[in-house]
Amino acid sequence: MTALDRLCAEVCHANLALVKHGLVTLTWGNASAILRDEGLVAIKPSGVSYDTLTPDQIVVLDLSGKVVRGTLRPSTDAPTHLALYNAFPKVGAIVHTHSSYATVFAQARREIPCLGTTHADHFAGAVPVTRQLTPGELTEYEHNTGRVIAERFANVDPAAIPAVLVAGHAPFAWGPTMAKAVDNALALEAIARMAHATLLLRPDAPTLEPHVLAKHHDRKHGANRYYGQP
Amino acid sequence: MTALDRLCAEVCHANLALVKHGLVTLTWGNASAILRDEGLVAIKPSGVSYDTLTPDQIVVLDLSGKVVRGTLRPSTDAPTHLALYNAFPKVGAIVHTHSSYATVFAQARREIPCLGTTHADHFAGAVPVTRQLTPGELTEYEHNTGRVIAERFANVDPAAIPAVLVAGHAPFAWGPTMAKAVDNALALEAIARMAHATLLLRPDAPTLEPHVLAKHHDRKHGANRYYGQP
Amino acid sequence: MTALDRLCAEVCHANLALVKHGLVTLTWGNASAILRDEGLVAIKPSGVSYDTLTPDQIVVLDLSGKVVRGTLRPSTDAPTHLALYNAFPKVGAIVHTHSSYATVFAQARREIPCLGTTHADHFAGAVPVTRQLTPGELTEYEHNTGRVIAERFANVDPAAIPAVLVAGHAPFAWGPTMAKAVDNALALEAIARMAHATLLLRPDAPTLEPHVLAKHHDRKHGANRYYGQP
Amino acid sequence: MTALDRLCAEVCHANLALVKHGLVTLTWGNASAILRDEGLVAIKPSGVSYDTLTPDQIVVLDLSGKVVRGTLRPSTDAPTHLALYNAFPKVGAIVHTHSSYATVFAQARREIPCLGTTHADHFAGAVPVTRQLTPGELTEYEHNTGRVIAERFANVDPAAIPAVLVAGHAPFAWGPTMAKAVDNALALEAIARMAHATLLLRPDAPTLEPHVLAKHHDRKHGANRYYGQP
Repeated sequence: MTALDRLCAEVCHANLALVKHGLVTLTWGNASAILRDEGLVAIKPSGVSYDTLTPDQIVVLDLSGKVVRGTLRPSTDAPTHLALYNAFPKVGAIVHTHSSYATVFAQARREIPCLGTTHADHFAGAVPVTRQLTPGELTEYEHNTGRVIAERFANVDPAAIPAVLVAGHAPFAWGPTMAKAVDNALALEAIARMAHATLLLRPDAPTLEPHVLAKHHDRKHGANRYYGQP
Repeated sequence: MTALDRLCAEVCHANLALVKHGLVTLTWGNASAILRDEGLVAIKPSGVSYDTLTPDQIVVLDLSGKVVRGTLRPSTDAPTHLALYNAFPKVGAIVHTHSSYATVFAQARREIPCLGTTHADHFAGAVPVTRQLTPGELTEYEHNTGRVIAERFANVDPAAIPAVLVAGHAPFAWGPTMAKAVDNALALEAIARMAHATLLLRPDAPTLEPHVLAKHHDRKHGANRYYGQP
Repeated sequence: MTALDRLCAEVCHANLALVKHGLVTLTWGNASAILRDEGLVAIKPSGVSYDTLTPDQIVVLDLSGKVVRGTLRPSTDAPTHLALYNAFPKVGAIVHTHSSYATVFAQARREIPCLGTTHADHFAGAVPVTRQLTPGELTEYEHNTGRVIAERFANVDPAAIPAVLVAGHAPFAWGPTMAKAVDNALALEAIARMAHATLLLRPDAPTLEPHVLAKHHDRKHGANRYYGQP
Repeated sequence: MTALDRLCAEVCHANLALVKHGLVTLTWGNASAILRDEGLVAIKPSGVSYDTLTPDQIVVLDLSGKVVRGTLRPSTDAPTHLALYNAFPKVGAIVHTHSSYATVFAQARREIPCLGTTHADHFAGAVPVTRQLTPGELTEYEHNTGRVIAERFANVDPAAIPAVLVAGHAPFAWGPTMAKAVDNALALEAIARMAHATLLLRPDAPTLEPHVLAKHHDRKHGANRYYGQP
């Protein structure tokens, strides 16, 4: 089994995990991962049912979008994934879903504020929303979706905030590995659902105090992190 | 196996899928499909539990409502289905449910606005609400429910907006095939749930920009659609 | 197997169905049924886990509350059930749960208005709320809970509105048979959840037009009902 | 099997029950229990997946925090658990989760008012919220989280109100036994979800009348309790 075979198996497994965790309805979602050394991206085929998805159906592209393995069309969102891999050199995997509450914030064109430690454990601040694409940007719609995300992260560290809401559309999440990207997509939906309910209960709910936010993020992700096993 | 046998099997399977996807509680729902060449409609029997539903219990009617196969009474909503098949010549299958959030919009007598691309992928604009039936229209209640839906679509393309909310009642969804009609019923509930949560978070949430709405609908349904496999 | 054995089996099965349908958390619920000819009521034992409930654990009482079969204590709510069987001579079975949204309306001390046909199919009008018990009525708390329900139905037909919300507490539902009582408890939770979401979306949502309410209720329950099989 | 082996098995089982009941997402939660005679606490290891958790992975600490059994790091929240065992001498087990609606109230920095008998059956009054920790208290963050909880309970009986919301963080629940602590965590989430929905429906919903609150709590927990089996 080559590294590329393993990548395709991981990407297949991640796509199925999205359904199992209730993040994907119908075919609304796709996961991909990259072999940085070889510049190859493995991604879900377009519009294929999750019920029958197998590793050999995963499509492999180079970073210019050329299919180098597989007989099916790649996800229509592949150019968005490629633009993100090009813009964020440390990202190893990307997950796109229309998970309910993250999508609700994207539709409300509202960032998800950091209201608690659950949020801070995964995202070191508010999860941002992009601007909407202009009519002129629709020519290369999916590619420009990636560009608009990258534009939004001009002054944001994608390792510290590994997710974004595309305005009027839905979330993308990412991580250094496929497993971390899936966890971040799952965490994103959970914190979006809780932020939604918190804001309905108390519209002026305070954001988490910066010292607690930093503490929680650091104990999982900082230089001296002590969460989990060594 | 005849084409009619296949239709009955598909209709039985679709009815069970509605339960599996959580769109139907108790016996609140029914699915039907039509063989256009023969003018025959297969539909769920009335009030029969989904637990024990089998293809041979599916009732077959002609377009005038006469039972041509089956020993059980057809769904009480059969005249609504027939009215829709007569009014919408390209519709191949119809799904009626009382799925929670689509029903909530029907009860609020409020159309579901297009707030995002998930909506636009399935419905090319707001999902409309009918008017309420008059007391005089109750004589042929179920037939007139179909007529009132058709009236509401006088200037709406039922292929572009394959669902409706009956005021104070619940949704109907449809499609060219049984599988597409079930997908549209499932998509309808998902977009209703997200629109509901979006409007609670931001009552003045903007509808999706028309250029993005058209782009998303066209990539799945337009002449040059490129979503899915060729 | 005697009629009483069958009753105990039905009551056991109904209690388990409440858990399966998500109406009961922990031990917050109980179902009972009556043999009118013999004046015997079968009910769940108190505080027994649903995981291990068997028909022979079901407790049988006479209408005065005396245990005539079984070695376990009956549900603490047994006196409420008995008071209802005494007050409503046509009721054959009773279901008490703390199902989420019915309990929410009970806590808000607000009746569930009839906002749609799903409601009208099961309840011929608003589901009422009782008054709170006075301090003096706590001496025989569970018995008086039943009395306060009966008081609320002085001018309401318990066959037409087979459920009530006890103020600050939770719902009771009933029916002519155990199966119908469970269906009514399930329908109650579904219409409470949809009414809640409807009222959040549109606080002044209109109640269902009386002519449509009567039509829907009559097609399932009226003298000329035509829903279901003959 | 020693008493300590049994404790580890119970703690493992409780951690898995939290996932089964939907109280824990990813690794956001941990359960512990104490052998008071030996001063030993068994707790979940940090960041270990619930999918593969076994009793021999459970870590045993003394009350000063020294690991006396097990090869994995204990939960990062272990110092909070230890502080609570030291502050509340009658507590036998503790459950920490980020369950959705309890966390929502913690994020809104709002106590959960007692709005109904479901609440009163488990908690003899509002479930309180702590103050936020100061920057100076972050040095021993987890230990001080326990101290801030104990501070909040200076005038509250932890046996009567067996749960707390840590401001901007999430809930802790406890009980005399591991099973009771899990039940309280489950009850806490259920009453938080219902309180949330009640307050959205009616922001000025009345708290339960004190005489009914006392009656309900006493029939389960009072000197003359009569709920359950003798």
